[in-house]
Amino acid sequence: MIVNMSDSATPEQIEHVIHRIREAGFQPHITRGTERTIVAAVGSGGRRHEIEALSVAPGVDTVVAIAQPFKLVSRQTRPEPSIVNVGGVKIGGEEVVVIAGPCSVESREQLLETAHGVKRAGATMLRGGAYKPRTSPYEFQGLGIEALKILGEAREQTGLPVVTEVMSTEDVDVICEYADMLQVGARNMQNFALLRRLATTNKPILIKRGPSAIVKEWLLAAEYLLSGGNNQVVLCERGIKTFETATRNTIDLASIALAKELSHLPVMADPSHGTGKQSLIGAVARAAIAVGADGIIIEVHPCPERALSDGPQSLDLTQFEKVMRGLCAPLRPLAGMKAGQAA
Amino acid sequence: MIVNMSDSATPEQIEHVIHRIREAGFQPHITRGTERTIVAAVGSGGRRHEIEALSVAPGVDTVVAIAQPFKLVSRQTRPEPSIVNVGGVKIGGEEVVVIAGPCSVESREQLLETAHGVKRAGATMLRGGAYKPRTSPYEFQGLGIEALKILGEAREQTGLPVVTEVMSTEDVDVICEYADMLQVGARNMQNFALLRRLATTNKPILIKRGPSAIVKEWLLAAEYLLSGGNNQVVLCERGIKTFETATRNTIDLASIALAKELSHLPVMADPSHGTGKQSLIGAVARAAIAVGADGIIIEVHPCPERALSDGPQSLDLTQFEKVMRGLCAPLRPLAGMKAGQAA
Amino acid sequence: MIVNMSDSATPEQIEHVIHRIREAGFQPHITRGTERTIVAAVGSGGRRHEIEALSVAPGVDTVVAIAQPFKLVSRQTRPEPSIVNVGGVKIGGEEVVVIAGPCSVESREQLLETAHGVKRAGATMLRGGAYKPRTSPYEFQGLGIEALKILGEAREQTGLPVVTEVMSTEDVDVICEYADMLQVGARNMQNFALLRRLATTNKPILIKRGPSAIVKEWLLAAEYLLSGGNNQVVLCERGIKTFETATRNTIDLASIALAKELSHLPVMADPSHGTGKQSLIGAVARAAIAVGADGIIIEVHPCPERALSDGPQSLDLTQFEKVMRGLCAPLRPLAGMKAGQAA
Amino acid sequence: MIVNMSDSATPEQIEHVIHRIREAGFQPHITRGTERTIVAAVGSGGRRHEIEALSVAPGVDTVVAIAQPFKLVSRQTRPEPSIVNVGGVKIGGEEVVVIAGPCSVESREQLLETAHGVKRAGATMLRGGAYKPRTSPYEFQGLGIEALKILGEAREQTGLPVVTEVMSTEDVDVICEYADMLQVGARNMQNFALLRRLATTNKPILIKRGPSAIVKEWLLAAEYLLSGGNNQVVLCERGIKTFETATRNTIDLASIALAKELSHLPVMADPSHGTGKQSLIGAVARAAIAVGADGIIIEVHPCPERALSDGPQSLDLTQFEKVMRGLCAPLRPLAGMKAGQAA
Repeated sequence: MIVNMSDSATPEQIEHVIHRIREAGFQPHITRGTERTIVAAVGSGGRRHEIEALSVAPGVDTVVAIAQPFKLVSRQTRPEPSIVNVGGVKIGGEEVVVIAGPCSVESREQLLETAHGVKRAGATMLRGGAYKPRTSPYEFQGLGIEALKILGEAREQTGLPVVTEVMSTEDVDVICEYADMLQVGARNMQNFALLRRLATTNKPILIKRGPSAIVKEWLLAAEYLLSGGNNQVVLCERGIKTFETATRNTIDLASIALAKELSHLPVMADPSHGTGKQSLIGAVARAAIAVGADGIIIEVHPCPERALSDGPQSLDLTQFEKVMRGLCAPLRPLAGMKAGQAA
Repeated sequence: MIVNMSDSATPEQIEHVIHRIREAGFQPHITRGTERTIVAAVGSGGRRHEIEALSVAPGVDTVVAIAQPFKLVSRQTRPEPSIVNVGGVKIGGEEVVVIAGPCSVESREQLLETAHGVKRAGATMLRGGAYKPRTSPYEFQGLGIEALKILGEAREQTGLPVVTEVMSTEDVDVICEYADMLQVGARNMQNFALLRRLATTNKPILIKRGPSAIVKEWLLAAEYLLSGGNNQVVLCERGIKTFETATRNTIDLASIALAKELSHLPVMADPSHGTGKQSLIGAVARAAIAVGADGIIIEVHPCPERALSDGPQSLDLTQFEKVMRGLCAPLRPLAGMKAGQAA
Repeated sequence: MIVNMSDSATPEQIEHVIHRIREAGFQPHITRGTERTIVAAVGSGGRRHEIEALSVAPGVDTVVAIAQPFKLVSRQTRPEPSIVNVGGVKIGGEEVVVIAGPCSVESREQLLETAHGVKRAGATMLRGGAYKPRTSPYEFQGLGIEALKILGEAREQTGLPVVTEVMSTEDVDVICEYADMLQVGARNMQNFALLRRLATTNKPILIKRGPSAIVKEWLLAAEYLLSGGNNQVVLCERGIKTFETATRNTIDLASIALAKELSHLPVMADPSHGTGKQSLIGAVARAAIAVGADGIIIEVHPCPERALSDGPQSLDLTQFEKVMRGLCAPLRPLAGMKAGQAA
Repeated sequence: MIVNMSDSATPEQIEHVIHRIREAGFQPHITRGTERTIVAAVGSGGRRHEIEALSVAPGVDTVVAIAQPFKLVSRQTRPEPSIVNVGGVKIGGEEVVVIAGPCSVESREQLLETAHGVKRAGATMLRGGAYKPRTSPYEFQGLGIEALKILGEAREQTGLPVVTEVMSTEDVDVICEYADMLQVGARNMQNFALLRRLATTNKPILIKRGPSAIVKEWLLAAEYLLSGGNNQVVLCERGIKTFETATRNTIDLASIALAKELSHLPVMADPSHGTGKQSLIGAVARAAIAVGADGIIIEVHPCPERALSDGPQSLDLTQFEKVMRGLCAPLRPLAGMKAGQAA
């Protein structure tokens, strides 16, 4: 932490900052420039918030944090990538995992048809919402436990491990009975009570990036899980809120590469929420793999125009098969590369 | 709802849309333009999501929603403004309510000193965090029930009604014992499980706008409370996430005027979180009142540079008194207005 | 400038940074922490970009700039506020200046009717577009020189000084003949060729904040004008691009207080572009004055529903008079303030 | 265009809207719902802005535009993709074009070394800035004509066609003498005077997306070029401004797929500005190709830590070669795909 004094800081004000840095458990280290003085708080055992709060001390211009605030999720703590095992499916390994299924479980028929269909097309995990976070109280809120039972049956029939969203601490136990992985939705990324509860389960967690969360905040949300005892965590980028209105969200694919640089945790992408547009999902899913994503999660519905939620961004089974084939196609060649150059 | 067919839509595709609009419980109304056809779904008893999902039907370009999705919070439902009574303090009436207090309750001494100080300066309600949503698991997480008891004591001593944040359904009962009003924090604005639980209490709720929520989503979050049975709801704008880095958030003061135009609920402003900067709080609080806010909530700490949270945006008691005086000063005069003109 | 070495930086890498800091004309000052080393570049005569570029040197984690990059616009250079005189109207003085007029000059009748009307209502300057920046090439592009002549006539008749937008270096001379103040539109805030040309005129400049410009970039755009020789500069906040769709832009009123804290230049607000909604303009204009704006610029049209541009955000003359009266009304009183307290 | 009347609209207000729609050159088509009435303006020859301005007419709630405002750039006008030929290099064809070179031309040695180096690594075009848009007036502003001559020499020596940025109408002629393609920088995307001037040249134009431009605005900027007579236009996504601070911009890769869906023009990506971080450029460039980009533009400098501009996001020649090899590597395989499935 660096305390940057203003140009007009008096010697007494600098002295006060030095004193407070010592009180907070750090060593002060002073650099006197031609125009201004900076004081570094050196050491690792001190109380950071006391240095942050010095930004309002007299004579202080700004306080700048240097070190990253996360620890257990950091590559510095664990340089090799983590692999999270979900019912036998390895996320973070050499292969890219595709999770597919409907936004909401609407009926036994709808889910089973989708589960068999996505398996045929090559998906290795099944998604389906039982408890749905809906912007309006008048929208379909999910079938709850009934949906969980249907998901359980689909797993039995297809062998696909199941991920479903958890919205409340009160639902954690029952969801753990039926699901192989629990998803923290984007709107709950900073529902800290929920994160603390999930940290005590033995289930893998898929944690989506909040629509207004910077990468650092996303990693700190995961840090709640790891510091609470659960290190089976997968990150998922699903788009952030920007001024662009042609897509539902703006998917920040560079953040996937960045998250993998900063953290050892696997990172997935959700092109369905990331774009909100059927026609863009295939291209964005390909891009996510190219940028380094360890997996893709895609919404599939037997008949999107009849879906109770997220119809506009759901693929039907034929479209999903086509997207899957696209994910295996080679990249377009470069104009300037002769055969030998790229080798 | 309007279904906008693409230029190349075939008669069969238009027929299909017409058929689906009827199935969804609406009357189709067709407008054939020179280039394209639009089909309106007329009526109020139909299933909106089925029309929305038609955006993926063949031959459909876009689906446009016309009516606002909220009902009980709307000015159309209740034209006159609502007044929410919190322990005798009326929010939404002729006077502007000022709520002040520390970000977190840190100790009995800290809170009581602040409570008496803000009362002296003219505040009519007390705030203080017992359960704290913190970005990092390594930051101070609040004193919990101990803090609630201290808040209760402060209320007894000062007569100021108390508002405190609730983060989890599990804490609702105990907070209801001690607080006069419960706050839903910005990060929990779409924690629907929490909203549904709070709708069943008989306490007034202060619901902050999420950092990435459009005004419509904010009003729909309030709609969860009203539709669940609790109509004692106050909205609070506290800044949204934008690219500007000089302030912690960008406070969207126009949204206060807009929310009051769309809804009958009272609306407050939080210039502390809205700016994150001590020096801007007074000016922004004044602007919030000028734009139509029914109240202001401000973070005050006896010694901001020693605060366990939000120090950089907390005022000390002297600064708070000065801000309060500023809120009563007249607006700067216009250059061109002669005495008579403005009358 | 501070060069923050990574935890794993070698002594050679630190030595390299120290060497490069000296080469760039600064003194290196080293702080060795328990985990990492930081090297400050001390002095004022060095080449900043060479230190910035060290962020890619081996062993370097980040480079942090400490000092603000602007000079002539800074309060540190000139603590007292600047007053800009536009044809006798003082912007930045004790009174708030209101500029009003149509988005575009459409005809002699339209402009003269507006000019007389806004003068009657208390405006002290006239605005009107001659050269219009339009998102689509198929929209009305302005009447050019004909519009300038009409503006000149309106000034003669009303005595109101005139401001109009300049879009291109080629139009600067002719606009200087007719206008009292030249406006740099938001989309041209970083049109540096235009800024350099305007710096050589002797006309006051109104420079709008770009829709994606942070406050620092806005001030640096003004710095182009001052460093080029023109210090008659007024800043104008007109809204930034955010995810909110209910308003055309999000007006960042806190940035007005911030700009006035950082700079001695006067700052105005444009609630017409800032909201894009007739019904919000009055409330936001009041808030802008309350937050500290030195002036307001408002779009007024005799018949907004027939305007060739910006109709949805234009006031008619009756609405404008009402807004002007609102700007003179007292602020709503605080609930807790007794007569004596605020004195 | 659809005029959506408010619930309380009177028959006279509806009549007024119908009348105005006729005046504006459209046919009115009325749909009366149970709660509200909508009036469509049908036809293609009318004046759109007059319908837009009806949003402020009494009794009108909102006006919704249905058709896209761009024409010549649209896929509907020209379904097959356009190929732009720049000195023999085809952008928009079967192969991906890589443009590389320094942010600024700093010296003859620097540019020639870079030009030969990037050619060796497989680049097919050369970039280099002669006139530089710089946020601060105190930063390096480019070598101007001297840089153009150096670029000309590099083209002679390497055969690589050259693209360089044009900032002002006054520089267009001299740049056309030396460059094969002119770039409109992100900050000038809506410098309409410049666009109109470039439309009259016979040079291909690379137009970058503005940092706050929605895709529609970007396409309308290109429409200025096509409607002015120049259809050799290539779009380039270079990142938009968002709240994320870990990257310089947020590159919106989905917008590339979207722009190609809406328009026949080729689209490139700029991962250097899109991320601002050396370490992310390779991954993001790969993702851009995967999402459908027709080319990539990358900043390369012989010694980034000595670059006069954009050092932190420039690759050295060794890093560039590695990135080029990465662009040719196959995509990571899917977990669930057996050999036959993807075929």
